[in-house]
Amino acid sequence: MSKVAIYDTTLRDGAQAEGVSFSGIGKIRIAKCLDAFGIDYIEGGFAASNPKDMAFFKEIKKENLQHSKIAAFGSTRRAGIAAGADAGLLALLEADTSVVTFFGKSWKLHVRDVLHTTEEENCAMIADTVRFMKEHGKEVIYDAEHFFDGYRDSADYALRTLQAAAQAGADMIVLCDTNGGMLPGEIARITAEVVKAVPAAVGIHAHNDSETGVANSLAAIGAGAVHVQGTINGIGERCGNANLISIIPNLILKMGRECLPEGRLVKLREVAQFVSEIANQRLNAKSPFVGDSAFAHKAGMHVDGVRKNPLSFEHISPEQVGNKRRVLISELSGASNVFLKAVEMGLNVDKKSPEVKNILKQLEHMEKNGYEFEAAEASFELMIQKLLKSHKPFFNLEGFRVIVEKRHKDEPCISEASIKLTVKDQEAHTVGEGDGPVDALNQAMRKALTAFYPSISEVTLRDYQVRILDPETATAAKTRVLIESSDGKQTWGTVGVSENLIEASWEALVDSVEYKLLLEEKNNKK
Amino acid sequence: MSKVAIYDTTLRDGAQAEGVSFSGIGKIRIAKCLDAFGIDYIEGGFAASNPKDMAFFKEIKKENLQHSKIAAFGSTRRAGIAAGADAGLLALLEADTSVVTFFGKSWKLHVRDVLHTTEEENCAMIADTVRFMKEHGKEVIYDAEHFFDGYRDSADYALRTLQAAAQAGADMIVLCDTNGGMLPGEIARITAEVVKAVPAAVGIHAHNDSETGVANSLAAIGAGAVHVQGTINGIGERCGNANLISIIPNLILKMGRECLPEGRLVKLREVAQFVSEIANQRLNAKSPFVGDSAFAHKAGMHVDGVRKNPLSFEHISPEQVGNKRRVLISELSGASNVFLKAVEMGLNVDKKSPEVKNILKQLEHMEKNGYEFEAAEASFELMIQKLLKSHKPFFNLEGFRVIVEKRHKDEPCISEASIKLTVKDQEAHTVGEGDGPVDALNQAMRKALTAFYPSISEVTLRDYQVRILDPETATAAKTRVLIESSDGKQTWGTVGVSENLIEASWEALVDSVEYKLLLEEKNNKK
Repeated sequence: MSKVAIYDTTLRDGAQAEGVSFSGIGKIRIAKCLDAFGIDYIEGGFAASNPKDMAFFKEIKKENLQHSKIAAFGSTRRAGIAAGADAGLLALLEADTSVVTFFGKSWKLHVRDVLHTTEEENCAMIADTVRFMKEHGKEVIYDAEHFFDGYRDSADYALRTLQAAAQAGADMIVLCDTNGGMLPGEIARITAEVVKAVPAAVGIHAHNDSETGVANSLAAIGAGAVHVQGTINGIGERCGNANLISIIPNLILKMGRECLPEGRLVKLREVAQFVSEIANQRLNAKSPFVGDSAFAHKAGMHVDGVRKNPLSFEHISPEQVGNKRRVLISELSGASNVFLKAVEMGLNVDKKSPEVKNILKQLEHMEKNGYEFEAAEASFELMIQKLLKSHKPFFNLEGFRVIVEKRHKDEPCISEASIKLTVKDQEAHTVGEGDGPVDALNQAMRKALTAFYPSISEVTLRDYQVRILDPETATAAKTRVLIESSDGKQTWGTVGVSENLIEASWEALVDSVEYKLLLEEKNNKK
Repeated sequence: MSKVAIYDTTLRDGAQAEGVSFSGIGKIRIAKCLDAFGIDYIEGGFAASNPKDMAFFKEIKKENLQHSKIAAFGSTRRAGIAAGADAGLLALLEADTSVVTFFGKSWKLHVRDVLHTTEEENCAMIADTVRFMKEHGKEVIYDAEHFFDGYRDSADYALRTLQAAAQAGADMIVLCDTNGGMLPGEIARITAEVVKAVPAAVGIHAHNDSETGVANSLAAIGAGAVHVQGTINGIGERCGNANLISIIPNLILKMGRECLPEGRLVKLREVAQFVSEIANQRLNAKSPFVGDSAFAHKAGMHVDGVRKNPLSFEHISPEQVGNKRRVLISELSGASNVFLKAVEMGLNVDKKSPEVKNILKQLEHMEKNGYEFEAAEASFELMIQKLLKSHKPFFNLEGFRVIVEKRHKDEPCISEASIKLTVKDQEAHTVGEGDGPVDALNQAMRKALTAFYPSISEVTLRDYQVRILDPETATAAKTRVLIESSDGKQTWGTVGVSENLIEASWEALVDSVEYKLLLEEKNNKK
């Protein structure tokens, strides 16, 4: 079976998503990441509408990509204007890419109501644009917008528009489900008919409005399409574009199709995380293949089974896509999981001991109060250590005070924190300033502790998350703070919960530092 | 075509999701909501494992549901034990539901490695359990766990297990893709073969590990299944269960199948939001059909088209599922959108005026600095009013001070805010206490303002969200605060951005109150 070409439009269609907007440098970084991953085509943006996109086309040429071709996006010439005189087409040439993708109309309704032209002129617009671009040496991809709706309205006319593109020499004809309303069965049927009727290679561009964006893309490929357009993590307008991060492993691992260079699939999760970070979004934990929960097992029964024979409880091996299996800490999972976790941590506990029961009880109590340990294993381990009385605290808090003051409306806020601790029977009383109250508290705590524990200066806070637990009570709501810390070698998560955001942050900060000291103590014992 | 029965397992399989755990009262509220929506079956939980689930079965009987049947969930009798002596089956009876659903094995591998019994005994376990439940007058639903994997391994044996259930009198035989690894084509093929080979009605239970959970369910129904299991919003372990919120409108609007009582589909969004709230999760804005972004239009070109003919740019009409169309405020959308929005707000501006250009410039500047107006239209309107100089502020801030203090490690934090404002040329200097620093600030501000503007006491804060914009800088990160306010009649969103969380909250609080006063001013003018 022929290779399937992967065409990424994260930087163009993906940028239409609510809440997403890429910086110039962000676009370059994504393009380089996709190139290293082995994506065949990267659509960089609109050639005409946006100076930021034009700057991208200029910049990316300096990057010397190894695998990907860059495509510039635009539309057919306007009605009644020669291709060579159309500003949009000239802008497409100016982008100076080897590939040009443009969209045109396949639906009579749009020809009449949006373009306000005749059916013949629409076909001429498509053919002229393809010809013009081929004359300028471009690889030409034609996106047939609203194709499936158009086909259902008038199969004859919709096919005529494609034939116009094919006869003019388009290298690829892409059937777009622009509204995202189709289901896979219909996509397969219509794609198969197009493949028979049109003398050109066929591709698919699907959206997720019916929650079938991935299945629609696979259905088209099953019916003969050899090119698939989508975005990383399915970002895009409304409900998103077809998600390449799910399409690619389904193609390779389940349909036996080639679409990435050998050995690249293991980078899938890394790519998903990278793009999600640049797009300033958190990768959904539930994301198929790449999410934190994709191979997480919670129910007691399953966890037992997974331990016995992972492949009989997982559809693929997580390592194939760069992900990993996780056993979750939770009330549902019962004593055997807590025991497993404790053993994983190197703790010496007996499965049936009263200590394990105690831990379960405390865990249940804390979860009811809003704690969540799934992303805060360091806090979980400290909690266990405290209950087993195997942990002696490295310092004690006497008290703290945080002041945020805005002295005049035009002056910036100042934040100051003072803190009193007892460390090794000595009192430490320090004060710190910061960008905000939590930063000030963090500064003061470090001042107090580094004199006693110099290794604390190695710890940086890599992530700080705030979750309002009962948002309907608004500013009086309970707050959960998650902090991710790192010392350059290891990374750990801690949690704090309180109605007071400052106190919740304090809890998570203290656990962060205590865990570092615990790690050090363990290393010294070795 | 026959009706499709909808079987909801949010309360059982959905509760396996990472981060989800329902309270007793929460489960009752969800069941009542699903009953009012017209869901045919509600699986309440495991009969054996969990006292919380047993309490649910007892409580729900008092609720007098109008439409839904309650199902209790369990497994076949154990190997080598008579059905009537099996504690699990007795617990299923004890749940005292009209419907009993139990799962059994179809995959030789699991019979051998998980059950440690023979293939014959496994078939007997299935048949005995069905017979036992039928003798006790139950409607029996048999969930064939890992059916598709089992069928691919040995179609003969997998079918034999189903025939055992059918011959013993099972009312429904449900094919489960427990690992979620199947694609729709294979699901359709195997389901069609089962429908031919097994003399019983057939159902489908799919998971979303391949991002095809919805498509897999629809494929099975297309191939002859008449019963579909899933969860609201697709919550569930790993990547979730098949999402009923997408399956239902696809069945009704696209496949022309009956599955809800007449007139209920308009409640779809309400049901999705309700369950998501009880599950303490935010409904994903991108959720097909029901998300805030599902019918949101951002790109200039699309917005123009949508205005001209909505049905040619939307796969269904948002009102059919209780959702609505939104025009988004964003840099990408250009002057015509800002103009549209301003007109929507009743402002008197000229599309080509320098003011509109000014607004666009300011908007771009603020978006670059982390502001987002998509959920904060009130702040957007105030910003426009300020730029048009049509807004005179209702009060001026002189300064504020917020103190959070923990005097002793065992004492709770106290939070106090003092604030100085000028209102109508008078000075107001007040102090407030609260659960946290923002709550204290809110209290102090209200004390200062209600003397001058009594209507402010009508305003309640309904939601408070914190987003860390550049989490990698941890506690020194920029923070965006979104507040949703309501006066019982109208609801509005405001935004604030700062490196200091307190200052960002202050901005959003001020806009919240100013917008209320602006509304009042408008009403007085009418």
